[in-house]
Amino acid sequence: MSSDVKILLSEKEMPEKWYNIMADMPNLPKPPLNPATKEPVGPEDLSAIFPMELIKQEVSQERWIEIPDEVREIYKLWRPSPLYRARRLEKALDTPAKIYYKYEGASPPGSHKLNTALPQAYYNKQEGITKLTTETGAGQWGMALSQACNFFNMECKVFMVKVSYQQKPYRRSVMQIFGSSVFPSPSTETESGRKLLAADPDSPGSLGIAISEAVEIAAQRDDTNYALGSVLNHVLIHQSVIGLEAKEQMAKAGDYPDIVIACCGGGSNFGGMAFPFIHDKIVNGAKTRFIAVEPSACPTLTRGVLGYDYGDVAGLTPLLYMYTLGAEFMPPGIHSGGLRYHGDSPLVSQLLKDGIIEATSLGQTAIFEGAILFARNEGIVPAPESSHAIQCAINEALAAREAGEAKTILFNLSGHGLLDLPSYDAFMAGKLEDYPLPEGILNKALGNLPKI
Amino acid sequence: MSSDVKILLSEKEMPEKWYNIMADMPNLPKPPLNPATKEPVGPEDLSAIFPMELIKQEVSQERWIEIPDEVREIYKLWRPSPLYRARRLEKALDTPAKIYYKYEGASPPGSHKLNTALPQAYYNKQEGITKLTTETGAGQWGMALSQACNFFNMECKVFMVKVSYQQKPYRRSVMQIFGSSVFPSPSTETESGRKLLAADPDSPGSLGIAISEAVEIAAQRDDTNYALGSVLNHVLIHQSVIGLEAKEQMAKAGDYPDIVIACCGGGSNFGGMAFPFIHDKIVNGAKTRFIAVEPSACPTLTRGVLGYDYGDVAGLTPLLYMYTLGAEFMPPGIHSGGLRYHGDSPLVSQLLKDGIIEATSLGQTAIFEGAILFARNEGIVPAPESSHAIQCAINEALAAREAGEAKTILFNLSGHGLLDLPSYDAFMAGKLEDYPLPEGILNKALGNLPKI
Repeated sequence: MSSDVKILLSEKEMPEKWYNIMADMPNLPKPPLNPATKEPVGPEDLSAIFPMELIKQEVSQERWIEIPDEVREIYKLWRPSPLYRARRLEKALDTPAKIYYKYEGASPPGSHKLNTALPQAYYNKQEGITKLTTETGAGQWGMALSQACNFFNMECKVFMVKVSYQQKPYRRSVMQIFGSSVFPSPSTETESGRKLLAADPDSPGSLGIAISEAVEIAAQRDDTNYALGSVLNHVLIHQSVIGLEAKEQMAKAGDYPDIVIACCGGGSNFGGMAFPFIHDKIVNGAKTRFIAVEPSACPTLTRGVLGYDYGDVAGLTPLLYMYTLGAEFMPPGIHSGGLRYHGDSPLVSQLLKDGIIEATSLGQTAIFEGAILFARNEGIVPAPESSHAIQCAINEALAAREAGEAKTILFNLSGHGLLDLPSYDAFMAGKLEDYPLPEGILNKALGNLPKI
Repeated sequence: MSSDVKILLSEKEMPEKWYNIMADMPNLPKPPLNPATKEPVGPEDLSAIFPMELIKQEVSQERWIEIPDEVREIYKLWRPSPLYRARRLEKALDTPAKIYYKYEGASPPGSHKLNTALPQAYYNKQEGITKLTTETGAGQWGMALSQACNFFNMECKVFMVKVSYQQKPYRRSVMQIFGSSVFPSPSTETESGRKLLAADPDSPGSLGIAISEAVEIAAQRDDTNYALGSVLNHVLIHQSVIGLEAKEQMAKAGDYPDIVIACCGGGSNFGGMAFPFIHDKIVNGAKTRFIAVEPSACPTLTRGVLGYDYGDVAGLTPLLYMYTLGAEFMPPGIHSGGLRYHGDSPLVSQLLKDGIIEATSLGQTAIFEGAILFARNEGIVPAPESSHAIQCAINEALAAREAGEAKTILFNLSGHGLLDLPSYDAFMAGKLEDYPLPEGILNKALGNLPKI
């Protein structure tokens, strides 16, 4: 077994194909429905805002999907990403467990999001689209799509939730460095934005509003499409590059995980890491446990229900069959902006229902404790979102110590926290709340799910 | 020749020894002088604030100095650092030149500074010291020393120039995450700080004042020493790990640089990259050009004079024989805080005097233009300091295009700019000044050099 801290792959060892778990799932999720007709959506329902290649991937049951050379060339700027053995953290925890983590934070936007932003921009460009629109909350996805559009010489318009636009100027700066136009949402750029501003000029905005603005422009213009950073099947397919590399790296280390952990908001980070290993569980009977970790303030998988729901507040998107807290649920203002989403990937939802994966939730004071312990041992200051996976891995390593079991734990460190430092300041000053959610709040939102 | 974008080394290929250019220099710099007696300093003058091993390294003429295993173990968290071939930038410049860059920004503090912070903390710990003090301006060095002290379980007190403490809270947050105490300087922690505050309660502070505070505490307490992030010989020895790795990586790429470029403030970044290649020039007659790039607003090498000067404003440090603008010179408020120093490394100064290296200067609007061109092609948002090297490399690549010469250019990308984004905002808003320095200002400062 290697005594190295980092397990690296050469560029020649980078995967040439993405993995599509739909080829292997015992049960596929129910199909998305057209929000008007409540009938399953067809390609024609989606072609106003997505390119055909992504619509094809969305329903594909092919196990392997080729990564275009043009995308692989840009992946090489940071991929294959390193796998680390967290030797110093293991020692600090005095655990017999071995802890590995895959680090996606060395990418240009500092998170895993560019893995899918690049192919999304590429396929759109191939089909003659020259402009993309999107929404962003904390800004990770907006940064990634801005960079992807820059690499393929496309224009990018980002609608950034107004309160984040004002509070998180650093990520906005990066989008602008890469040439994007960034608008605080609600904006005067769209009909839906203007309508909202007329009613409430001081609206702080929300992801649901920003989605409406981005989709409105994409639907109206022939040269413009829309791009989404999580939830959908094609996004999770692209993210599989994470888990595929991790499998090669674990093999190089002479090891295989007993437990695979990732944080889970829309599901692209969890799916990207876990699905290639879940293949081994479904097809080869591997005994690995898979844990999706979400914030206790937005407990979609652990306290939501499985059913059809809208992706946005206004009800403009297709209805997805997923675990949801209800589209009207407004998560408390936790610092893990990337995990504040009422729904979840239909693929992740189905795997949870079928007992192939587990889900758990953590409060934000716990995850910042884990983040600081991790930083002081491994050097990297992690993103709050990724710190959910860290704290869960710490808990599992401590359980292994209690049980005296030399478990092998693998988690995805999906991004660094260098643009989240005010959150750390708030934690160190003792100002963070955990926002326990009373049943009543959830029941109210869940009582209003659309009737199918 | 490899077609890879990244040239990686395994942990086994990491250097086991640092390189000390004093073994090879045709002329050594004149020795430092005691500020009171004006006689050459002896070990006893320095032992109040530095451990003996670093004092030994400061005067050593051994070519190779062993890297302690304990330091190499922590280096493995990010070392060997990657060497990139900037293929996309080359294409954008339409140049026949090959451009390589060594990337030090993937380290925990995001810059090259941890390369020396770690051994400095280690040697102090070995000699029974449990606390270190230092000063920091923009915060790169303070972050690195905080992390190094954390890794070796030492306390760290950082005196941060007050105006930076207030304007750059992000780097302060990182120091605190790693357990340091950070004080805005001038502070009430020291006699010199209290004296200054009594005279001017609103003093914005300066590096010179912060050095005085850090040195005062270190000199008074037996368990406490002081650490410096650049200028001194032992710092440049530790940074040689950059150039040693780059030599191995260039060999793997089947190439050798015609031009080596690094930005230069105190000289540790330039020395770290260049000195191992300068060995080949001195010892083997290699024809490589070496370019130290400084800001035109702080033109130590290009417009200063070579002579004895103090390292700080108060005149407490030994007199160093170096290019200087005069210790009383106050550089304009450019965004490359790491390059705002009146003096330069005595080793770099001597090599410039002997014609072995060259120096040039660039204005800050030019370097931000280079930074954005680089980011849009290579993905990484560079630190303003490092962008001096980028813009110089771009200029050399364009000159190679004019001349039709396939030059091989290597530069050091010493850090990322994710904690410098307000500087980018100011540039994009057209608000940056170049601060051309009239002769008069320089002549005044240079007229007041200490008389030896």
